[in-house]
Amino acid sequence: AVAAPVFAQDTPTLNWRLASSFTRGLDTLWGTGELFSRYVREGTNGKFNIRNFPGGEIVPPLQVLDAVQKNTVEMGNSSGYYYHGKDPSLSFDTAVPFGLNVRQMNAWMWEADGMKLMREVYGDYNIINFPLGNTGTQMGGWYRKEIKSVDDLKGLKMRTAGFAGEVLSLLGVVPQQLPAGDIYPALEKGTLDAVEFVGPYDDEKLGFAKVAKFYYYPGWWEGGAQTSLYINKGEWEKLPKSYQSIIEAASRAATVTMTARYDNLNSTALRRLLSQGTQLRPFPRAVMDACWDATQKVYEQTSAKNERFKRILANYMGYRDELVPWFRIAEASYDQYVGAALSRAKK
Amino acid sequence: AVAAPVFAQDTPTLNWRLASSFTRGLDTLWGTGELFSRYVREGTNGKFNIRNFPGGEIVPPLQVLDAVQKNTVEMGNSSGYYYHGKDPSLSFDTAVPFGLNVRQMNAWMWEADGMKLMREVYGDYNIINFPLGNTGTQMGGWYRKEIKSVDDLKGLKMRTAGFAGEVLSLLGVVPQQLPAGDIYPALEKGTLDAVEFVGPYDDEKLGFAKVAKFYYYPGWWEGGAQTSLYINKGEWEKLPKSYQSIIEAASRAATVTMTARYDNLNSTALRRLLSQGTQLRPFPRAVMDACWDATQKVYEQTSAKNERFKRILANYMGYRDELVPWFRIAEASYDQYVGAALSRAKK
Repeated sequence: AVAAPVFAQDTPTLNWRLASSFTRGLDTLWGTGELFSRYVREGTNGKFNIRNFPGGEIVPPLQVLDAVQKNTVEMGNSSGYYYHGKDPSLSFDTAVPFGLNVRQMNAWMWEADGMKLMREVYGDYNIINFPLGNTGTQMGGWYRKEIKSVDDLKGLKMRTAGFAGEVLSLLGVVPQQLPAGDIYPALEKGTLDAVEFVGPYDDEKLGFAKVAKFYYYPGWWEGGAQTSLYINKGEWEKLPKSYQSIIEAASRAATVTMTARYDNLNSTALRRLLSQGTQLRPFPRAVMDACWDATQKVYEQTSAKNERFKRILANYMGYRDELVPWFRIAEASYDQYVGAALSRAKK
Repeated sequence: AVAAPVFAQDTPTLNWRLASSFTRGLDTLWGTGELFSRYVREGTNGKFNIRNFPGGEIVPPLQVLDAVQKNTVEMGNSSGYYYHGKDPSLSFDTAVPFGLNVRQMNAWMWEADGMKLMREVYGDYNIINFPLGNTGTQMGGWYRKEIKSVDDLKGLKMRTAGFAGEVLSLLGVVPQQLPAGDIYPALEKGTLDAVEFVGPYDDEKLGFAKVAKFYYYPGWWEGGAQTSLYINKGEWEKLPKSYQSIIEAASRAATVTMTARYDNLNSTALRRLLSQGTQLRPFPRAVMDACWDATQKVYEQTSAKNERFKRILANYMGYRDELVPWFRIAEASYDQYVGAALSRAKK
């Protein structure tokens, strides 16, 4: 027989700590963790208190996974792909190049095999994970010079990491991993030529527009970047069922709210940026194609070295290949018609 | 001084009834109400029990709003546009022709003025509303004959209602309002020429493919159809804060889960339908343009008669006009590139 959790039938008073990888200034990413904690606190009549700490305050931003694994903190709010170096399969929990968009990612996680596969991966780290937000398709970043051809990528010192960094380095980019706070000075000094972060609202705050004029799209390495909640497995198993259920509902609620916030804020931020001189550019088709091809190479190389990665990649990309044609029918044709009609109406 | 709610500091045992407009067979629409109730029950340690009744069992499907208003049942799960005849502003709570897609609707409701405006409208009916699901962009329906031009719409007996019916009747369609169960026999007898319901997964279950061969897209009258939770205002105000918070989080969680379910299920359902002879067709551009123009006329006519409708329309469409150009940048260019790349890869 399995022992019942310690306070299974109770509503215990708990004071937990959540280490975030994000800083207070980014009210989108940081704010989602706060919303989640508020739902949990209110739903339990104030009995289950989760205090959120910004990245660097009690745990360095890129060590949140380790801190939850070791139970230094009970909870974390981070992104799987920050730990790409430990295990590239963790990147599927955030985004991988030319992967799922927001809605496809939600469907994969909650209605298909995504959650089961990610739980298997995080199991290695003694962590129970939940989605806790999605930014939507990100922008392709800020560049001091125009990117007119694949050749313009050569030697480009760019702030990016994980898979995107590996793919871009095949095309000559020199990827640099820098915390958010160090990016602006590096761009200003010219020791960095380009940077990608999220999208108009966050990027505007970080001031990139002042030092890099060209703003490219789309961020093909993040078609929909999911952020995650981490819970130490031993602590999770001790929670009463009611608290576990509140965590599940609150994490889904926070996930959809983060996307709504970004969708609400990005549009006006982009308008402000454009009015102040930012030059918006789509990546040239030849650049997109070269990145697509390089991505397939990186996937093959990683699969050859890592059996589990290969298995998850097949599941994830199989799901993409299944869903994308359907999204092109009703959704895309609707969006396209409305977009074109509004453009015509403006003229 | 205002009296404190009866059991504000307590966790009372409550047994509530929720009348749904949907039937058990539609596990997408019906299932979302069940998921919501499960989150509430589990989160309150089984103290707050909401029993869901299918449409027609204790309340007729199209009288859910009235039943909640009169407190015959404490809760309802329905669609605002079913009550278009009472007040056309209620349609904004579901979908209106050429309106917001899923993500834009979520952003309008939760991060902009949507919730405030809809609460104002439902206030007339003594109801507190929450979003409780969104189907995504629907299909344009099933037709026994091809729609090659605007002329082919003339005299078409079509199952549709509300705004879509008003717009289509300007183009010669004869709109019919029928409950889901009566549609199939009417199509079979030929007393109905066309029907729109939701999308591949639900439509397949209702058997439309057996009697109508042509399946059109997109459903321009439902770019993202939101379904709603209704709570009698007096009952809501008596709830303790913790139960109110659990309802809010659970309704957001259920909303995003419904969309994920549809996104997961529609793709394979469409594939089955196509393999069994369904002919997929986009509405011809001239038909879409005629519908767009007729829609603007209906909006003008309705605005001329109804001041509040006019005010909400301006807010809602202003939001669409603000967000759509941004969605065309990162999101649409990403989706389009991936879609085209996969098509090329298949060849």
